[in-house]
Amino acid sequence: MATHKLLLLPGDGIGPEVMGQVEQIVSWFGKHGLGSFEIEKGLVGGAAYDVHKAAISEGDMKLAQEADAVLFGAVGGPKWADVPYQHRPEAGLLRLRKDLGLFANLRPAICYPALASASSLKPEVVEGLDILIVRELTGGVYFGEPKEIVTLEDGSKRGVDTQLYTTPEIERICRVAFELARTRRNKVSSAEKHNVMKTGVLWKQTVTALHAAEYKDVELEHVLADNCAMQLVRWPKQYDVIVCDNLFGDILSDVAAMLTGSLGMLPSASLGAEDPATGKRKALYEPVHGSAPDIAGKGLANPIAMIGSFAMALRYSFGAGDAADKLEGAIADVLGSGTRTKDIAGPGANAVSTSEMGAAIIKAL
Amino acid sequence: MATHKLLLLPGDGIGPEVMGQVEQIVSWFGKHGLGSFEIEKGLVGGAAYDVHKAAISEGDMKLAQEADAVLFGAVGGPKWADVPYQHRPEAGLLRLRKDLGLFANLRPAICYPALASASSLKPEVVEGLDILIVRELTGGVYFGEPKEIVTLEDGSKRGVDTQLYTTPEIERICRVAFELARTRRNKVSSAEKHNVMKTGVLWKQTVTALHAAEYKDVELEHVLADNCAMQLVRWPKQYDVIVCDNLFGDILSDVAAMLTGSLGMLPSASLGAEDPATGKRKALYEPVHGSAPDIAGKGLANPIAMIGSFAMALRYSFGAGDAADKLEGAIADVLGSGTRTKDIAGPGANAVSTSEMGAAIIKAL
Ligand SMILES: CC(C)[C@H](C(=O)O)[C@@H](O)C(=O)O
Ligand SMILES: CC(C)[C@H](C(=O)O)[C@@H](O)C(=O)O
Repeated sequence: MATHKLLLLPGDGIGPEVMGQVEQIVSWFGKHGLGSFEIEKGLVGGAAYDVHKAAISEGDMKLAQEADAVLFGAVGGPKWADVPYQHRPEAGLLRLRKDLGLFANLRPAICYPALASASSLKPEVVEGLDILIVRELTGGVYFGEPKEIVTLEDGSKRGVDTQLYTTPEIERICRVAFELARTRRNKVSSAEKHNVMKTGVLWKQTVTALHAAEYKDVELEHVLADNCAMQLVRWPKQYDVIVCDNLFGDILSDVAAMLTGSLGMLPSASLGAEDPATGKRKALYEPVHGSAPDIAGKGLANPIAMIGSFAMALRYSFGAGDAADKLEGAIADVLGSGTRTKDIAGPGANAVSTSEMGAAIIKAL
Repeated sequence: MATHKLLLLPGDGIGPEVMGQVEQIVSWFGKHGLGSFEIEKGLVGGAAYDVHKAAISEGDMKLAQEADAVLFGAVGGPKWADVPYQHRPEAGLLRLRKDLGLFANLRPAICYPALASASSLKPEVVEGLDILIVRELTGGVYFGEPKEIVTLEDGSKRGVDTQLYTTPEIERICRVAFELARTRRNKVSSAEKHNVMKTGVLWKQTVTALHAAEYKDVELEHVLADNCAMQLVRWPKQYDVIVCDNLFGDILSDVAAMLTGSLGMLPSASLGAEDPATGKRKALYEPVHGSAPDIAGKGLANPIAMIGSFAMALRYSFGAGDAADKLEGAIADVLGSGTRTKDIAGPGANAVSTSEMGAAIIKAL
């Protein structure tokens, strides 16, 4: 049995707590012969800055490059509000995405039946919701140059960011979306602003051509990003896979996540290109939620998004779809039996702690 | 009594139908001595392209420059999907915004009590909702240069858009937000992505400094744009005024509009700077909804957003707050009495036509 190298980067806030639960799950899978894992640990975000004066150290970047998969908790918090910009906690995450070439961010938004009532939307709007946002993650306004603030002659300042996409960048992310749609309900909605942005024009042209050449069996629809945000609120079940650029994906995936009422439960995968020689791809798995500094260290965090992220690692990095199904099944069982952390318990209801939730999932395995 | 010059640009799709109702309202106000209006009409969008081979003619641009207020319907539709990019219907609207210097876009999102049930959100989440998005409208990625698609040596293409803001641009829009907050619940939420974008860093710095210097009496909070989209879905009543750049405003205002269940009802105002000599400002008023080509010409469109846009013109361009209150009161009365166009009638319920709704509002005046 191949040994899988896992790098754990718990990060800040509730990151270490939820990562602690994943460690137990990983060791359960190891002990039960469902995979062989070699675990390394590193620092990222504010936690890395406190030690290394950088949002991730070169040593940890090297471990990330060597790992078969990185599990990432969350970064940031008020403690680091004033660190120099290039060392802010988010810089660690952005560097991992860029240097590992993790261009494909998969964000499923699933409404767990037991939790539909936690949504701010009406039950009939979200019950059974299962959509997947495929977000481009290494391009666009996040990384384009120039990206700077300059002082003008009159003393005022000008800030610039550059939104930049090439056809190969657009093609490879849309390819991921089409391939995944084929395993789902066979529909891709491509969101951009071609009515205002030249990158949107290029995006629309490129996805249209790729579809005609290779994916005619998949339904393709084009939607303006602003309208897509609106439609997600109006009737999200019209979507299957939504593909979009880095910035639109940032916003649309947050909207989609919030619809489900299950923000503390949603995992994500960020994947690189397959290495033709080894068949392997670099990958990072992280919860959609943030570092929630206000509840950190109190045992209140919901570890399910982080545990679900490990399930995605089993599926996408380790070819262990059965093990992933087993883990996701255990999560569903635990929810079905009524076990709830505070975020999903509803006002006044009994809630379990982070570690009790982790233990319940292990018990259900 | 001063005569107000109004330019009507009905545009495409349902634009002409809803504008027709506003014309009746304007003439009612004139006849009842509640204002003196001089009306000009022009073409914009596809309608202008069909006649002038441009999304707005130079003659109509001149009329817009001379008008005290422009009333704008909506533009676009499948008929013009293949016109040259610089002549696409939206180009007419973008040119009006830019050439008239309409930097401040005010988009109220109000949930009419009688319509709360039309929202996809739970009634308790949206009932009584009254927020105002103040969107920067003449800068950012909409207009920054370079903005182009170039062919690279290997035959692939690269698209570029430029997100660009200066401190004076940020200051003037934030000033509008603070001033309006003072007339409301005294809170401004500034949305940007300073964790990723340099324009976001500059935005946050600039609004913070302006607040400290001149608006300490107003509560200011900073929120990341992705989180803001999420929070709008989770619990929108936490907001009063949200101020943001052009692109974030495009998306956030659409989300906010959809929350209310009243998309066909929401007006907007786009204002220029006050001319120190005359005290006047250029202005354009338009519904938040689009041209809805699928229902155009069928008498199904809801004219309330367009009529409400005229109410905003009365308030912001003509200093006629009382007349605006009267018109908004008439709209509320008509809704209160149960009169509904199809979009807000609910399945199976009786609905009135566009012109019946217009007539009902005139009757209630
Ligand atoms: C933390 C931040 C840099 C990040 C982003 O903007 O991509 C986050 O919002 C996300 O969506 O993963
Ligand atoms: C029609 C389009 C150019 C416009 C925009 O993107 O600003 C519209 O979506 C809006 O919000 O007014």
